[in-house]
Amino acid sequence: MTELQQTANCYEMLHQLKYYECTDTGHPGLSMLMSMMTMVSDAHSIFMGLDRQKVEQSGGAWVVISYEGHLSANQPRYGDQVILGTRATASNAFFALREFWMDDLHHHHYAHIKALFVMMNLQKRRLMKIPDELLAPFESPVQKRLDKPKKPGKLSGNFTSQQYRVRYYDIDVNHHVNNARYFDWLTDPLGAVFLRHHQPVAFTIQYQNEVQENATVESRLARIQDDGTTTSQHEVWSGGECCTSAEITWAPVNNG
Amino acid sequence: MTELQQTANCYEMLHQLKYYECTDTGHPGLSMLMSMMTMVSDAHSIFMGLDRQKVEQSGGAWVVISYEGHLSANQPRYGDQVILGTRATASNAFFALREFWMDDLHHHHYAHIKALFVMMNLQKRRLMKIPDELLAPFESPVQKRLDKPKKPGKLSGNFTSQQYRVRYYDIDVNHHVNNARYFDWLTDPLGAVFLRHHQPVAFTIQYQNEVQENATVESRLARIQDDGTTTSQHEVWSGGECCTSAEITWAPVNNG
Repeated sequence: MTELQQTANCYEMLHQLKYYECTDTGHPGLSMLMSMMTMVSDAHSIFMGLDRQKVEQSGGAWVVISYEGHLSANQPRYGDQVILGTRATASNAFFALREFWMDDLHHHHYAHIKALFVMMNLQKRRLMKIPDELLAPFESPVQKRLDKPKKPGKLSGNFTSQQYRVRYYDIDVNHHVNNARYFDWLTDPLGAVFLRHHQPVAFTIQYQNEVQENATVESRLARIQDDGTTTSQHEVWSGGECCTSAEITWAPVNNG
Repeated sequence: MTELQQTANCYEMLHQLKYYECTDTGHPGLSMLMSMMTMVSDAHSIFMGLDRQKVEQSGGAWVVISYEGHLSANQPRYGDQVILGTRATASNAFFALREFWMDDLHHHHYAHIKALFVMMNLQKRRLMKIPDELLAPFESPVQKRLDKPKKPGKLSGNFTSQQYRVRYYDIDVNHHVNNARYFDWLTDPLGAVFLRHHQPVAFTIQYQNEVQENATVESRLARIQDDGTTTSQHEVWSGGECCTSAEITWAPVNNG
């Protein structure tokens, strides 16, 4: 029996990878990984009695600002059981830091992700102080200076770009373009041949502006080759502004 | 305790709907419904010891030709537990008929789908006789004339059309464009306002030609209004040929 942590501060759940949660490599892609992180985060909130309705009553909504992730060479395949986990790592009046992981059944990380959240006042469309009743229950240590996710570098040198129209099915149950979908726009321009032969080992992403539901986005891509690894730099532009920046480090696929 | 059937002929599994399996209506869309049907079909095959490897050894691959589906007004929401089920209904030398369902925990149908499969010789790229060792284990009644899914009507009158580029993430673990994704191309042109206020109650779809991974498809749409219901007629074209035809009947969303 795999032991799962389920406390105020930390929550784990078992999950079996479906075939439609994996790319044609047989492994989950980054966008599905991020969707699973949102799922375990939601599950933790519900476990603590803080469902979407409770959060909405505060007039605010949790918004993710940035992620920093690290993936191991060994990745799970469809059909595999994994542990999805999250911990409320630290927080202060305006920021909440969470960790996420996807582990094998022996608690070895397939992926480990750091995420920074803020709370957005939905009426005024601006940051708000995180209400104590939405933060205190998770018992995360209060820290003035948080160890935030690393920021992606600026696009350097020449870039190529590709347009993506936001589709209805990019919008999730929160009525916003799903944050995880950005990873499809970011990585699709790398092309099938590259994506079949490389796997992400690290990434940083920063969300600056929301993409609107009828928008067409421009996904910009620059590549930096360095010995065995490739680093791809990304920006998603819409309506004349940069909405998202990201940087991903790739290694050749591990067929072991 | 919900009783599940798991026999040679019929297989059921429990599934909890994830938020990323639902559209912004909170209910699963048609493409996710079809993905879940493929999942339970795979699970049934694996339960019978006939995994993908065993099928590949025969030199063939199961290919779906057509679906006919009916959905109830009451649909599950994310977080709900559902029963996914399948039965090998009937078969003959070249065709296999399967039923699928998504039920509530009291075995009432949310959706009921009939599917027609053939086996494709992967080398010769043409139909082959279904090997007995892949068919007999499911104990489906042999019938000369099968009660096949209804065919969708031809596009009648004026149509609008929209282009979709096949993206890397439309390709599934079988290295083909995922059959379920066609439903996103089919229905996205109806627009977010329509899709938020209508739910599908019946559909037929026929797959004639495979869409290739680097293709751009043209999704054609005509609408027929009739009292309270709307019927949408669809064709997906690629490379100068019609790849898929479909017809979907929609009712105003049931907010009950």
